[in-house]
Order: sequence, then structure tokens, then C-alpha cells
Amino acid sequence: MKKLADIVRPTPVVHEGRARENIAKMAAKARRLGLEFRPHFKTHQSAAIGEWFREEGLRKITVSSLGMAAYFAAVGWDDITVAFPFNPRESSLAGELAGTIDLGLLVDSSEALAAVIALAAPVRVWIKVDTGYGRAGIPWDRAEGVAQLAKKIGEAGLEFAGILTHNGSSYFADNVEGVRVSHALSLKRMQGVAQSIGDCAISVGDTPSCVLSDEFQGVQEIRPGNFVFFDLMQHALGVCRDNEIALALACPVTAVYQGRIMLYGGAVHFSKDSIEMEGRRVFACLADDEFGAVDVESPLISLSQEHGSLLPGSAASKLRVGDLALLYPAHSCLTADLHSQYRTLDGGLIPKWLGGR
Amino acid sequence: MKKLADIVRPTPVVHEGRARENIAKMAAKARRLGLEFRPHFKTHQSAAIGEWFREEGLRKITVSSLGMAAYFAAVGWDDITVAFPFNPRESSLAGELAGTIDLGLLVDSSEALAAVIALAAPVRVWIKVDTGYGRAGIPWDRAEGVAQLAKKIGEAGLEFAGILTHNGSSYFADNVEGVRVSHALSLKRMQGVAQSIGDCAISVGDTPSCVLSDEFQGVQEIRPGNFVFFDLMQHALGVCRDNEIALALACPVTAVYQGRIMLYGGAVHFSKDSIEMEGRRVFACLADDEFGAVDVESPLISLSQEHGSLLPGSAASKLRVGDLALLYPAHSCLTADLHSQYRTLDGGLIPKWLGGR
Repeated sequence: MKKLADIVRPTPVVHEGRARENIAKMAAKARRLGLEFRPHFKTHQSAAIGEWFREEGLRKITVSSLGMAAYFAAVGWDDITVAFPFNPRESSLAGELAGTIDLGLLVDSSEALAAVIALAAPVRVWIKVDTGYGRAGIPWDRAEGVAQLAKKIGEAGLEFAGILTHNGSSYFADNVEGVRVSHALSLKRMQGVAQSIGDCAISVGDTPSCVLSDEFQGVQEIRPGNFVFFDLMQHALGVCRDNEIALALACPVTAVYQGRIMLYGGAVHFSKDSIEMEGRRVFACLADDEFGAVDVESPLISLSQEHGSLLPGSAASKLRVGDLALLYPAHSCLTADLHSQYRTLDGGLIPKWLGGR
Repeated sequence: MKKLADIVRPTPVVHEGRARENIAKMAAKARRLGLEFRPHFKTHQSAAIGEWFREEGLRKITVSSLGMAAYFAAVGWDDITVAFPFNPRESSLAGELAGTIDLGLLVDSSEALAAVIALAAPVRVWIKVDTGYGRAGIPWDRAEGVAQLAKKIGEAGLEFAGILTHNGSSYFADNVEGVRVSHALSLKRMQGVAQSIGDCAISVGDTPSCVLSDEFQGVQEIRPGNFVFFDLMQHALGVCRDNEIALALACPVTAVYQGRIMLYGGAVHFSKDSIEMEGRRVFACLADDEFGAVDVESPLISLSQEHGSLLPGSAASKLRVGDLALLYPAHSCLTADLHSQYRTLDGGLIPKWLGGR
């Protein structure tokens, strides 16, 4: 790995070519289907990578916190949706932002809506709907609750933007067909809610559905985020191919034991998110050479604060103390979140937001 | 929670009184048993909290990376062991540090030792021994490998500090007696290695054993870290009581659903480390009021990037949108690592190192 030879500690590396291609493909798909594309920037959290999206003609984004919205607003993004149910305790920051950019907020309760109305600012208000994932939102089978909130939004003189969901259930599908079925069900439920409240815009989000499905009837905008980097989770689901994964973690090899390789690279570098492979928790897999194929024979099976234990498949068994191993993480969003900058293959550094802490 | 009323986003809160008492108790135990106490600072990663240790008369510390060693060296700690097998790629930083402080390094291979020797600096060298945990170190039943390394250390004119282990197996014990049995076995194996190579110092580390055992025959130093804050993991193991847990995360309540409360507080605030409670993954538990009892009826059972789903026990069922919930994390080291500062109950802020990224 000549291009990464100067790396001394666990370092996230972005394959710029792949990331730009991932962005271009999703942008082209959205254009083809006539969908507004409002990418979620929580995955990369970087102003510099944001420019790659701008070069594709994108002007509207999604983020996961008001702090992240402030970071991107400061570098010229002026149309931002915060895709997290409004937190009344952050009203001060929300009010400030609403005064300078076109701000979209989510609500799923009258309490949160009251706090949004109290901002006395011109925000777009989305109603979050839960189509069965069970994380956040008004359940899809309680459209009357959605209608009541929508009515209150209008009465308060605010813009009702529409209904928004994150179909996280797609991540639990068994294969690509399962993702499409999950998406179709979620979409049908969103269409039902939209019809029963008298039609409104629909916004959907998850990367698996946005990559694999072509069915977006009634949908106005898509908000995928993970697709910029992809990861093992998407790979295992059949959402991306090996040569589309654009984020890897470079880790020094610090010991070679019998049947196990120890890396300098632990939970504070990868996060403890994992996928299950053959009944085992896997936090990452070795990438052949520089961003080559996913080496499923060399999984990272254990993580403590700074240590990672790699099972050596045939490629990994060549690793020696002092070498560098490149690994594709289970979940690129959480891995990226832990770092203050990315390294590129040409030796450049890409700064990112670290303000979440 | 009047003292925390101004918190607007997920914020780690340290109970200073408890943390200081935890430090004082461990320091007193070490004095009573005639052990050198070299606390591991990877848990709190804060120069300010380091001063609480200094006030107990402590002058020697343990850290988990050379970067962390540099941070603490810059605020006056001049005797630091980096308890991670030496990473030859960081020789430059190691060489610099060795020139300014009394630096202890770990090796468990001739390759790593060669890199340490090449520093041409006066470092103390510990040999890492694996007493059965299976993470890092030369296996305890291969004392000849330890003897060979010790010989090479001496021949290179470096100080052989002794043998060092982390008995992580203690975390997998069923109860306090299981911890003591695990510690006794690990210690017996360390004593065996020490005897077979002709006697040397022994350093042991894990918090469960250091808290629960009084058996440290042949041990020169202890290096616990987690005890400063403790957490649910230690609590479940019987290592600490409710009123000894000194770190909690304050999270805004953003929605109240049927049978579930949504918090602003996700994987990027807690980490995805978890314990198992009644067959369920649990990332945190509600603390009654301000640092009260662990409310096992109100566990945090699901985490995504920014969202946390809490099951509402009787105390949690009183929570409303806009309220603040205080939660004890499953693993305080990883939760603390994610933040740039702690809040105290009197409204103060304690900065910490964030240089690991």
C-alpha cells in the first residue's frame, strides 16, 4: 500500500473517485425519476465532501442535528432539513438558523410543534411518519394524528412541507428483493397517509431502497446518506458492490498471534456497530490491497477501546508487525463520525465536522 | 433536575464527589496493600480530572496511546506507561516522548522490541503477557518466549520493567466470586511466568479484580482505569453500587410513544457498547432523578446515530417532550471518549482530550 505508507495510526481513508461516482449515480437516478435529491450529510459530515455534491448541481441537504446544520450553513448551504424530531431545548439555535437559511424541521407531536411555532420563524415543517420501523414518528395507521398536526401547522401560518419517513426496516431485509418489498410496503403506507389527509409531499430516506428500487410513485424527495461511502452492511445486503465502498480504515498491525492478528484500531476508531456473518459479530473486513475486494475470510471479530482482533484469511496471513491493514467498516456513518479528518489516496487530508461532541 | 436544567443536547455529566471518592478508595487500597497505583487515564482522558488523582498523591499513570501520553505529558505527568503493544509506525512520537518523560512501553514480539530498541532512548520495557483473555500478549504457558524477550531487552541496555497483563476475562465472570476466581487464576499464571524467568515485577490492570480482590501476592503495581466513573457493566457484575457511578449522559426527551420514549442521544453519544440484561442488549439505564439508583426497568434498548429508544419503567413514564433524562451508560470509557468536555453538577465544564481522532 504505497499510497498510504506514511500513515502511523488508525486513519479513515476516502476513495474520492468511488465517492464521486456514488454521488453522480444517485443524482442521475433522481433526475431520471423526477425526484428532488436532498442527500443526508450525516454520513460524511464534511464541508469539503459537500462540494462534491455541489458539483453535481445539488443545493438542498439533510442533516441529523441542528449543530450539523449550523456547520453546513456556515459554508453556504442555505436549504437544510434537520431529519430528527425537533428538540425544544434547542429552540435558541433553531431560531438563529431559521433567520439565515431555509430551514426544514420535523415534528411528530403537538408538544414539539408548539415549540416550533414558538420560534416565530419561517420554517418548513415536515411531519414524521413511522411506517413500521418503530423508531420515530406518528404510526402510519393513525393518519388522523397526522391530519391534526398538519392542520395546526397551517393555522400557525407555517409551511406544511409534507410527510417524511425513514424506512429503517429495509436494513433488516434478507436480500435485494426483500429491500424492494420493504420499500414498497413503506411507500404504500406513506401514500395511504398522504391520501387520507388530502394529498401532500412525501419524503423518503434509506439508502437500500433509494439504490435498489425504481418505485417512487407520489414521492417528492429522497434523502439517502450512506450511499456516498457504503459499507459492509450495505455490501452484505446486496446494495453495493466491492468496488463502490469508498471508506476504509487504515490500521497498523501491532502483533501477529497464532490464528489472530492484532491491529491498532479499536472501538474508538471503528465504533462498535457490527453485522452478523455466519453467526459471528463482525466489525469490519480486510480490503484486499488498496480498496480491493471485501475479504470475508479476514473479519475483525473483536474490538476493545484501542485493540482490534482480525482473523487471518489467506491475504491477512501475510501481514506482519509494522504493516498497515486497510479495512472496510461495518457501518461507515458511525466510523466516519469518530474522526476529525479523512485521508485520500493521493495523500491529501479532508477535514470534517467534529462538533457533535 | 434543576442543576442540569440548562442542558440542551446530549451531555456527559460527571459526579465529582463520587469520582473523587472512587479515586480516594482505590488509592487507599493500594497503600494498604503496598502496591504501586498507576491509574489508567484512558477512561476520563482529562487533564482536569487528572488533577484529582494528583491531589491523592499519585504521580505515575497509564494511558492507551502515545497521543494520549503526549496530552498528559504536556500538563506535567512525567512517568507514563503506554499500555498497548508498541506500534513501530509511531516511533517518531515515541522517541520524542522518551526524551522528555519517563516512558514505559509494552512489547510482545521481537519485531516490536526491535523497533523499541531502534528508538535509542531510555525507555522502560514491559513484556505483555496473555493469561487467557486472548487479546494481546505472549501466552502465559510460553514463558520461554517471555524469557527470550527479557534477555534481548537487557542485552540492548534497556530497563526490563517486568511482565504486564490485562485480565479482561474478569468482565465475563458471573458474579463477584467469579471475578475473584478469574483474578486468582490470572495472577497464578503471572506468578508462574515471573518465577520461570527468574523473578520480575508484575503489573495487573482490570477494574473488577482491583476492586474486589485483596490477593496481590507478587504484584508490584495495579493499573485500573474504569473505577473512576464505573458504569452499568461494573454495576451488573457487582463491582460497584449505584451511588458509586460517577458518569451519566443527560439527554433531551424528544418524543413519547406508546411504550417507548425517544431520546436525543444515540450511538454517537453513548457508543454502541452494551450489556445483556434479560436476553436484551442494553446501552444504558435511566438514573433516578439526579444520579439516583439505576432504574433497570427503564433500559435504553435501541440506538441509531442520534436516536435512543428508552423503555419506560415507572419513573421514565413521567417523562415528557422537552424534559431531560439522565442515563448511566453501559461502558463509561467509550461514552466518555466520544465527548470533548464533561459537565459537572454545579454547572462547571471539564475539558478533555479529543485528540484520538
